Amino acid sequence: MSLDVTFLGTGSAYPSPHRGASALVLRMDGECWMFDCGEGTQTQSMRSHIRAGKISKVFISHLHGDHVFGLPGLLCTVSLNTPPDSPQRPRCVDIYGPRGLRHFLRVTLGLTASQLLFPYAVHELEPTSDQCPEEGQLSREVTAAHGALHPQEQEGRSIALDPGSDSYLLFEDDRFEVRAFRLFHRVPSFGFCVQEKDRPGRLKTELLKELGVKPGPLYGRLKSGETLTLDSGRVLTPGEVLEEDIPGRKVCVLGDCSSVLGRAHVRLCAGADILVHEATLGDEQQEKAAEHGHSTPKTAAAVAWECHVRKLVLYHFSQRYKPVTLQKDGDGDDVRELKGQAEEALQGTGIEVVLAEDFLTLSIPLKRTR
Amino acid sequence: MSLDVTFLGTGSAYPSPHRGASALVLRMDGECWMFDCGEGTQTQSMRSHIRAGKISKVFISHLHGDHVFGLPGLLCTVSLNTPPDSPQRPRCVDIYGPRGLRHFLRVTLGLTASQLLFPYAVHELEPTSDQCPEEGQLSREVTAAHGALHPQEQEGRSIALDPGSDSYLLFEDDRFEVRAFRLFHRVPSFGFCVQEKDRPGRLKTELLKELGVKPGPLYGRLKSGETLTLDSGRVLTPGEVLEEDIPGRKVCVLGDCSSVLGRAHVRLCAGADILVHEATLGDEQQEKAAEHGHSTPKTAAAVAWECHVRKLVLYHFSQRYKPVTLQKDGDGDDVRELKGQAEEALQGTGIEVVLAEDFLTLSIPLKRTR
Repeated sequence: MSLDVTFLGTGSAYPSPHRGASALVLRMDGECWMFDCGEGTQTQSMRSHIRAGKISKVFISHLHGDHVFGLPGLLCTVSLNTPPDSPQRPRCVDIYGPRGLRHFLRVTLGLTASQLLFPYAVHELEPTSDQCPEEGQLSREVTAAHGALHPQEQEGRSIALDPGSDSYLLFEDDRFEVRAFRLFHRVPSFGFCVQEKDRPGRLKTELLKELGVKPGPLYGRLKSGETLTLDSGRVLTPGEVLEEDIPGRKVCVLGDCSSVLGRAHVRLCAGADILVHEATLGDEQQEKAAEHGHSTPKTAAAVAWECHVRKLVLYHFSQRYKPVTLQKDGDGDDVRELKGQAEEALQGTGIEVVLAEDFLTLSIPLKRTR
Repeated sequence: MSLDVTFLGTGSAYPSPHRGASALVLRMDGECWMFDCGEGTQTQSMRSHIRAGKISKVFISHLHGDHVFGLPGLLCTVSLNTPPDSPQRPRCVDIYGPRGLRHFLRVTLGLTASQLLFPYAVHELEPTSDQCPEEGQLSREVTAAHGALHPQEQEGRSIALDPGSDSYLLFEDDRFEVRAFRLFHRVPSFGFCVQEKDRPGRLKTELLKELGVKPGPLYGRLKSGETLTLDSGRVLTPGEVLEEDIPGRKVCVLGDCSSVLGRAHVRLCAGADILVHEATLGDEQQEKAAEHGHSTPKTAAAVAWECHVRKLVLYHFSQRYKPVTLQKDGDGDDVRELKGQAEEALQGTGIEVVLAEDFLTLSIPLKRTR
């Protein structure tokens, strides 16, 4: 299965003609999962190879406008552009995000009389009180979704922190497990870890031939984990004839933060193929960044290092940093300096640093061995 | 005083890379008034000569997402880009729109913890029940703004229809009067009429010389309407020494509609310099347009004709109509056909038809005579 990440917006605070507001898409066979949806994300997606109609899940890291103002419009446009009888129509768009997101969507869609051609459900993460300064905490009175469900809204879950794992289990099926963990920002913010499940290793075909098992349906049954008894009476377990499991891929996307809360991320993000981390300002502005609940490349590098990830992708740059392709000699605020700062912090670790730009796509190839 | 209109979005239903969602700006000395604010309007304004920080009033025609989803983000970005001690900071941004707009802003700004560096007030227009089909009417339960004011929100007015004039008086000062009138659409929708006040005519300087009044402060006092007594005892009224009043300019912007309700517009929009009217689809799709509460060029032309306006500007085109500059020979759905249909309907009337495109600016020159 192919897996890639496409950045639709890499700017902080607001969208500009050079950098969209926060949004990225994890694309897999047949569906897309979106992480954050700042204003203008639907237009950015039209400019990209992403087909917004394929979006089946949305993860909102936190309720700042530059991460969520594009969501009502995106849902409306997907609906408008989906033929009513299309088989591509999502069964239900599952939306995950902090408490308050359900109310946000119910009011924005409700007041604009927006009807969708598909159902949606908002699954709210219950923040803990230490995720942000006191003034950033929204009371239950403000965040509670009042009144009736939107006509296309399905009852969503309220997901509390699992104290054992210090994380939130958002979703699990036979291909993926998605968990969230807590970040520290000006308002409750979350990181998301998408873990692909391990796949069974390759069949030892030489061995099977020796045992007289011919290629055919039996191979498939062994690969899917079945124990077989051959005509000879020999019992064959999958463990005998399969190479070691092929590890699943892992993509981690952190919302705005000046730090990660707790230690869950070290295990959750361990060895991630891609860790997407904000770097709003350069290291020389560390104090200002922290004051606004943001990170610098050094902060991001420290997280990448403690999780021993393969690739650190920086994004969510202050709008003062132009995209590399528009950077001219002599311009100040060169985004490449942010990359240099992270690389310096990660020297000798083998962790690759990548600067995200709008429309950058990163493939995550299948693994072959552990 | 210079006066011009700039279109920031001319597409219907949703923003696309070719046509932004609905938004236009009336620019005058020192300030800008915005009409509708679809998603992405802030980015469109960055691409234009409009300085969003100058926006002092916003008029929202109706609460469909393609006309309002950009408003919370626009306010936030204006605030972020305004130095806290700037003299250019608007004293208070006055926002006018249908009942429900106050709740929309309070919830979107509140849940995203958006703080503004300036106050705002939402003045709500109370729709009448015949402005839309029954299913498009939002109950008071849905539209009522709950809870406390947003920290930067000032108490706004609730404006009812004035039965005498069949219109809503939104605003009046020594330069302008702005009124709204009712349209028929799928949800309550309004048209806005910005009437510049008449200015006193030129001084009859020859006559004044004959009377022995020399150029100087007396000229200014006469022009501002003062009656003077000369040393000779002669009483001089402004009417004697001033040419006829110079009529003020008039710009009318109609929101989405399939028709205008009542007859107020005929008087309000009479002789308008510019009438901006939607034309979502071509005349050949009149039935479909009406079914969705929209107009075709013929509908727009009929309104322009009954108001005897000078210039009819068509906008809010279905996204199937590319901008003229991107239209290729052989492409279907040529927006120029919409212009042709309006021109045909207005043949011989002297009313000019203009196709709006994103970033088109139309100047409205000062008048000299009636």
